[in-house]
Amino acid sequence: MENKRPVIVIVGAGFGGLAAANALAGEAVDIVLIDRRNHHLFQPLLYQVATAWLSPAEIAAPVRSIFSTRKNVVVILGSVTGVDATARTVRIDDGLRQIEQRYDFLVLATGARHDYFGNSHWEAFAPGLKTIEDAIAIRERLLMSFERAEMSTSDDERNANLTIVIVGGGPTGVELAGSIAELARAALAKDFRHIDPRLARVLLIEAGPRILPSFPETLSAAAKRSLERLGVTVNLNCRVTACEANSVTAGDERIAAATIMWAAGVKASPAAAWLDMKTDRAGRVMVEPDFSVPGCSGVFVIGDTATLTDAGGRLVPGVAPAAKQAGRYVGQVIATLIKGHAKPAPFRYRDYGNMATIGRRAGIADFGWISFRGPIAWWLWGIVHIYFLIDFRSRMTVSINWLWSFLTYKRGARLITGDEQRKSVDTENGTR
Amino acid sequence: MENKRPVIVIVGAGFGGLAAANALAGEAVDIVLIDRRNHHLFQPLLYQVATAWLSPAEIAAPVRSIFSTRKNVVVILGSVTGVDATARTVRIDDGLRQIEQRYDFLVLATGARHDYFGNSHWEAFAPGLKTIEDAIAIRERLLMSFERAEMSTSDDERNANLTIVIVGGGPTGVELAGSIAELARAALAKDFRHIDPRLARVLLIEAGPRILPSFPETLSAAAKRSLERLGVTVNLNCRVTACEANSVTAGDERIAAATIMWAAGVKASPAAAWLDMKTDRAGRVMVEPDFSVPGCSGVFVIGDTATLTDAGGRLVPGVAPAAKQAGRYVGQVIATLIKGHAKPAPFRYRDYGNMATIGRRAGIADFGWISFRGPIAWWLWGIVHIYFLIDFRSRMTVSINWLWSFLTYKRGARLITGDEQRKSVDTENGTR
Repeated sequence: MENKRPVIVIVGAGFGGLAAANALAGEAVDIVLIDRRNHHLFQPLLYQVATAWLSPAEIAAPVRSIFSTRKNVVVILGSVTGVDATARTVRIDDGLRQIEQRYDFLVLATGARHDYFGNSHWEAFAPGLKTIEDAIAIRERLLMSFERAEMSTSDDERNANLTIVIVGGGPTGVELAGSIAELARAALAKDFRHIDPRLARVLLIEAGPRILPSFPETLSAAAKRSLERLGVTVNLNCRVTACEANSVTAGDERIAAATIMWAAGVKASPAAAWLDMKTDRAGRVMVEPDFSVPGCSGVFVIGDTATLTDAGGRLVPGVAPAAKQAGRYVGQVIATLIKGHAKPAPFRYRDYGNMATIGRRAGIADFGWISFRGPIAWWLWGIVHIYFLIDFRSRMTVSINWLWSFLTYKRGARLITGDEQRKSVDTENGTR
Repeated sequence: MENKRPVIVIVGAGFGGLAAANALAGEAVDIVLIDRRNHHLFQPLLYQVATAWLSPAEIAAPVRSIFSTRKNVVVILGSVTGVDATARTVRIDDGLRQIEQRYDFLVLATGARHDYFGNSHWEAFAPGLKTIEDAIAIRERLLMSFERAEMSTSDDERNANLTIVIVGGGPTGVELAGSIAELARAALAKDFRHIDPRLARVLLIEAGPRILPSFPETLSAAAKRSLERLGVTVNLNCRVTACEANSVTAGDERIAAATIMWAAGVKASPAAAWLDMKTDRAGRVMVEPDFSVPGCSGVFVIGDTATLTDAGGRLVPGVAPAAKQAGRYVGQVIATLIKGHAKPAPFRYRDYGNMATIGRRAGIADFGWISFRGPIAWWLWGIVHIYFLIDFRSRMTVSINWLWSFLTYKRGARLITGDEQRKSVDTENGTR
């Protein structure tokens, strides 16, 4: 019995890849969904894992269980190492061996990683935040710096351990800064005996003239004031020129800081290299208005991996709702191509609004026709994010964790685990 | 202003150490609580982290926050490397430097690690379950073995990946086996396309003639039947003679298995070596009836690190309630010594009963005057364990996670993260 159903390979189980798979799962097709991780990650809340607020499992869902009842969806846990656009195959390394997977249609939705603008050696000193491992490593570094400050024997050592620098004033940087300031000023406030965590210095460095440049200027200014009220120092028009172990140089000033985080730029995943395509400066593939790749029949690139100006003349932004819409759209395009129907209307990004939070109470929201700030924006942000969380259990437990930390100011996930901790335990075992 | 208050150093923030600190925190003393971890771990539920049921933060609480309002309790995150019982000092490595901490009274409650009975090289192939890192590593190995089975190209490879061996039929081994059998038969059942996870072989190997030897024989037999009903194979009177990568030899049989877990024995932490004391075969310090150490004035050893026959002639078991009672008792002894009051009555372990669960529905409970099994024992076990969980939030979120997986058979924390995953990602980056 030969399989005549079209095979659609989707690489990446982020917002774009999931939306494409969902749009096609009801059709008479076979879908192969490939990801290096076994879980879909709800990235907008990742900073809350990094700041000891939520547990990783609360913002992640196993890809297999999302599609468990869709028998035409096969999930492969593996890394794509190349694409042969002529033979129409994808090469996958599943950890055991290399596989060649044939496709009729290929959707690349591999997202982006941090970009250090040519200084990739900075990553060791100023890690970015894209995966659960990133978040746990940052949480460990952050909590350990307070522990080290408690044990410091000189003012210089103590001050360096109590200095936290966040590079980049986009939504991730702003949300990290606000959440860390509150961690120090509330959750940790009474827990140490030799230091006052409230004296921790949280520094947000932005190269441009304002934070949150995708928002209206009044909201940027309001967000800056909210951060400053929480005790964050915001340095605008300030460019990082060096990152080293425990120090960052911004402009001419060298700042001693045990914790440095990078939220300044992203670079697209290697889809362009697989296809041997030209990209923009951020490594994104320049796609046709239907997200297809010129010269590669049957190949589509969406989400943070692609760059496109939509039918309304607007550059599609690198945000979750845009990736979802692109995934759904490409699913429809592929379905019509298979059925021989007329193509859907050109893609047009629908902007439902833009929100960000600053700490536990302040938020800003911009819906074009209306924009506002304050506690209402915060609550709206919370409701929207809980609503979009993958499954019932995550919604419930995240709601409870939020409510709990809202009422008590405590943080539920203040665990130091992982590499650094393991190293010190190993050392100790060695001395036994 | 000289500090004349007695200094009590407590090493270990497990059940015993916390109980001792709580018993003394209201006295006119200064307490120094030292642990290598920043969190107290609720170990009885650790197997649920290893089997993707709960998140680490749900069974752990930061030590500092437990004592945040007790200003006479100083928490140090560090490793004890030695004790000078003559000078009455403890040597601590806090990651930055060595500290000498003076004490008037010292309580050692450092717990135990797995014991491989002279074959410590087995640990790499058959990890044990004592820390959060252990649990996450086991969870990763377990979930990855199903992924590898899905991608296997031969029957032998597939069968090895679908074979899970648990060595040791005590409560941890039994609870792991039951929970893994249900993971395979329910949570994962519909999620794969090339394998049927329900065919996974879960093997529990016990050297003795029955599992759960601390329970009455009828309950051991009932637990064995419950495990078999879940599909677990129980091999009694069967001794492991070798562990290698992906195989375990039990008796004369060599079993190919991708996942092997060790729950067969524990060995006390190095308190005895610090004190240069004789120990029993499991490395436990033989203490006086008040947990003091003969020849070391002011030093007490409690919990899994000590061995004692109590005033009732009963060997105090290595369980959480016994450690708690010992901690509280030693706190009272120290308080009376400081005040010059009469010592409390000799320690007598109060056995409130013994419970274990087998999977999601079956349980056994033994209270001496009554023992029973079945769903009621399971629910009782759940209520008791939730009640003893440290804080309100953990109780709430664990209740919800349990209820959710009870109603849906799903597992909330099915994340593959950590070392193995990171390795494969690094490899992929290398090929870019």
